[in-house]
Amino acid sequence: MLTRRAHPSSPHLSFFVIENREQRKTEIIECNAGITSTYRRGLYASVDMPLDADVFQVPSGYNAPQQVHITQGDYDGAAVIVSWVTADEPGSNTVKYGKSKNNLELSAEGHVRQYKYYNYTSGYIHHCVLKNLEPDSTYYYALGENCTVRVFSFKTPPVPGPDVPYTFGLIGDLGQTSDSNITLTHYKANKDAAAILYTGDFSYADDYPNHDNVRWDTWGRFIESSAAYQPWIWSVGNHELDYAPEIGETTPYKPMLNRYPTPYKASGSTEPQYYAVRRGSAHIIAFASYSAYAQYTPQYQWLQAELQKVDRKVTPWLIVIMHAPWYNSYNYHYMDGETQRVLFEAWMVQYKVDVVFSGHVHAYERTHRISNIDYNITNAKCSPVSNNNAPVYITIGDGGNIEGIITNMTEPQPSYSAFREGSFGHAIFDIKNRTHAYYTWHRNQDGNAVAADSMWFTNRYFNPTNDS
Amino acid sequence: MLTRRAHPSSPHLSFFVIENREQRKTEIIECNAGITSTYRRGLYASVDMPLDADVFQVPSGYNAPQQVHITQGDYDGAAVIVSWVTADEPGSNTVKYGKSKNNLELSAEGHVRQYKYYNYTSGYIHHCVLKNLEPDSTYYYALGENCTVRVFSFKTPPVPGPDVPYTFGLIGDLGQTSDSNITLTHYKANKDAAAILYTGDFSYADDYPNHDNVRWDTWGRFIESSAAYQPWIWSVGNHELDYAPEIGETTPYKPMLNRYPTPYKASGSTEPQYYAVRRGSAHIIAFASYSAYAQYTPQYQWLQAELQKVDRKVTPWLIVIMHAPWYNSYNYHYMDGETQRVLFEAWMVQYKVDVVFSGHVHAYERTHRISNIDYNITNAKCSPVSNNNAPVYITIGDGGNIEGIITNMTEPQPSYSAFREGSFGHAIFDIKNRTHAYYTWHRNQDGNAVAADSMWFTNRYFNPTNDS
Repeated sequence: MLTRRAHPSSPHLSFFVIENREQRKTEIIECNAGITSTYRRGLYASVDMPLDADVFQVPSGYNAPQQVHITQGDYDGAAVIVSWVTADEPGSNTVKYGKSKNNLELSAEGHVRQYKYYNYTSGYIHHCVLKNLEPDSTYYYALGENCTVRVFSFKTPPVPGPDVPYTFGLIGDLGQTSDSNITLTHYKANKDAAAILYTGDFSYADDYPNHDNVRWDTWGRFIESSAAYQPWIWSVGNHELDYAPEIGETTPYKPMLNRYPTPYKASGSTEPQYYAVRRGSAHIIAFASYSAYAQYTPQYQWLQAELQKVDRKVTPWLIVIMHAPWYNSYNYHYMDGETQRVLFEAWMVQYKVDVVFSGHVHAYERTHRISNIDYNITNAKCSPVSNNNAPVYITIGDGGNIEGIITNMTEPQPSYSAFREGSFGHAIFDIKNRTHAYYTWHRNQDGNAVAADSMWFTNRYFNPTNDS
Repeated sequence: MLTRRAHPSSPHLSFFVIENREQRKTEIIECNAGITSTYRRGLYASVDMPLDADVFQVPSGYNAPQQVHITQGDYDGAAVIVSWVTADEPGSNTVKYGKSKNNLELSAEGHVRQYKYYNYTSGYIHHCVLKNLEPDSTYYYALGENCTVRVFSFKTPPVPGPDVPYTFGLIGDLGQTSDSNITLTHYKANKDAAAILYTGDFSYADDYPNHDNVRWDTWGRFIESSAAYQPWIWSVGNHELDYAPEIGETTPYKPMLNRYPTPYKASGSTEPQYYAVRRGSAHIIAFASYSAYAQYTPQYQWLQAELQKVDRKVTPWLIVIMHAPWYNSYNYHYMDGETQRVLFEAWMVQYKVDVVFSGHVHAYERTHRISNIDYNITNAKCSPVSNNNAPVYITIGDGGNIEGIITNMTEPQPSYSAFREGSFGHAIFDIKNRTHAYYTWHRNQDGNAVAADSMWFTNRYFNPTNDS
């Protein structure tokens, strides 16, 4: 039985517990051709790691650059946006970089900003774009000045092409609990994963009184061990809204937009929350579930144009990331994405999107290839049907945040649902070539080495076999 | 046959014509318990009135206040926002006002602004709030200075109460053609109508190259003969977005928000596009079809809270205005409102909204009281059914704009549709008391004296009989 309880030390927080904590062994049952895994993690309070946790430590040295993270900086991966925070003074905006660790011969100049949120004032937030990077190359970059310089590295992707192998990680709703830490640790153990597609909900600072933005800082330090070395490609969730009129904070997305830039202009977007990039053999579209998207709005117009720009001969794999899932069979956020599904699902089919990754539901689920796009109000055609042109929808909101895991499912398992399990974890989408990609989901209890769910994807453009 | 043609003198414009221009006499046929009126206006090019039309004339005198319009300025109608434009210099921001035309003993100070839109620079746009007005009183107000003073008047509504009679006009998608002029002229002939509920799409300036904002000015002068004397209560349409990245204009709603303020803060909204007011015996909610509205967004949170604030014992009549209709059986914008319907329709039923007025479709339609809120993806319950707790949905986007009339309908007439006709016109919602309101729709060909469609509304809270 799943119940919500007040947190013992922080009454404003709550968490989910299962009354019967007996850990059940994994047992797979089939239901409506879908699988509901009976594996249940032993649930306990998903509290955030304490402020003095190792993963939150401020790096040593005066004004040391912290919360370092990178994301793709242009359409095709020849640029990187480097972001970091300094706490003592603004410091330098310069990034020195180069292909030899001992000779950082290049430099780029960024800019710095601060923001206020209620009674919180941010550190000095720096963003700097490194451009004209050579493809498929390792770059080292240095931040800071005087005695406090920190050096990191990243690898640029190959030039986009149809048979470029590329391995993406999938993480959503990560937060900063010990479960979050396990998820990230397991993800990092996969040495092939070269970039993260992030499906929204970052720090969960808004679960604290006054959205305590200190938890945005701790989250930035927490993810640095990955995000400083490979791009995290962002889509935004509801926890990034940070809309709190009761304390005078009415500008949606304020902390997120100050901290986590996106290369939106490169794809013709005019708002940072939605954009597209090409990386390797994938065209990735980040959709904003909580921005305006009705017909005529900027996001609608942009998405319509972007889908027409996709060239599957260059990037065969068309991947959409967003926060609210359109297909979800948990009793939690059930049909939250319906308002977007009825508007955009036909486009997903028309453009033969390979896969849609979402977050929001703190659990895992994968659908069959189905669509539900024939409805016209009067014809009663409103049931999902198999459709080989439709994407697979995968909910990966199981990063491990403070709000806990979800295990309460609609019964029976609906026919659109192929596999579902209420556990924390992350996933890997490993593109082999223009026809095949191998997908695996890794629950936290098993580490990275074991796949609790997997599927061979065949490409919807080059090899549209019935793979689901 | 309806076809779209390029405008002969302005190739960037187009309009609809019916190939067979024979004017048919009115003939009512019944279909699926709904009525499709066979009346068809003789269709011709709906071109905008020329810039030198009488209704667009700039008032005489140096720096004369022009484009004068008022809207409700607070939650309950004891304030008015007065807006006007001066062209020669900023001039005075003062509004002098009082209950005697010969003794404007009160004064209020407003503010002035300008905006640029591509190669257009606006005049000096003034907004001034008159507060603490006595109820049910006529006020005179004067704008301008020196030799150029213009005097107008308005009547405040009674204090909100359950049996306050109040007559609203309904206009949508007005534009500035000769048809628009007929609509407005006919509306003004109804001396009982005390305020307009406007369902979006104002000037259609965006149909001109570079969204020629001169057409925002002409529209402001066009509506002044009504809008300076009674409040127009605004909801926003897609034509107010004025989103044009191709000319660098990427701030949605820029001209509208500079010109047409709303009292949004009074209802706890944090964005001008959506808000609520109480007026007489009505609680009016203006929903923004093209702003963000998904769960967790500011508009969603605001609407949820506002509906809970409605006190039917004070304001029995709950009226929603918005642009995109949720029920529409024309082959034009069909299902455009579906993304909003699936999210919010259940609330309309839960809170027993009396009537929802929309625009967007350039024609007229009224539905039965129906709902379609039982769908859960797997149950196939997706057909509209009779529901006495549901609103009547009325499409009133037939103001008469440059884009022409719509007559192409889905066949057969769906069961949810009670009456539809492809003619221009306006409507009157005449609240008698807490139990009854008389609604009439007036097609332009008949003038204001004749109702081409009518219905006695019984109140959903005090008298929920089957009235549809």
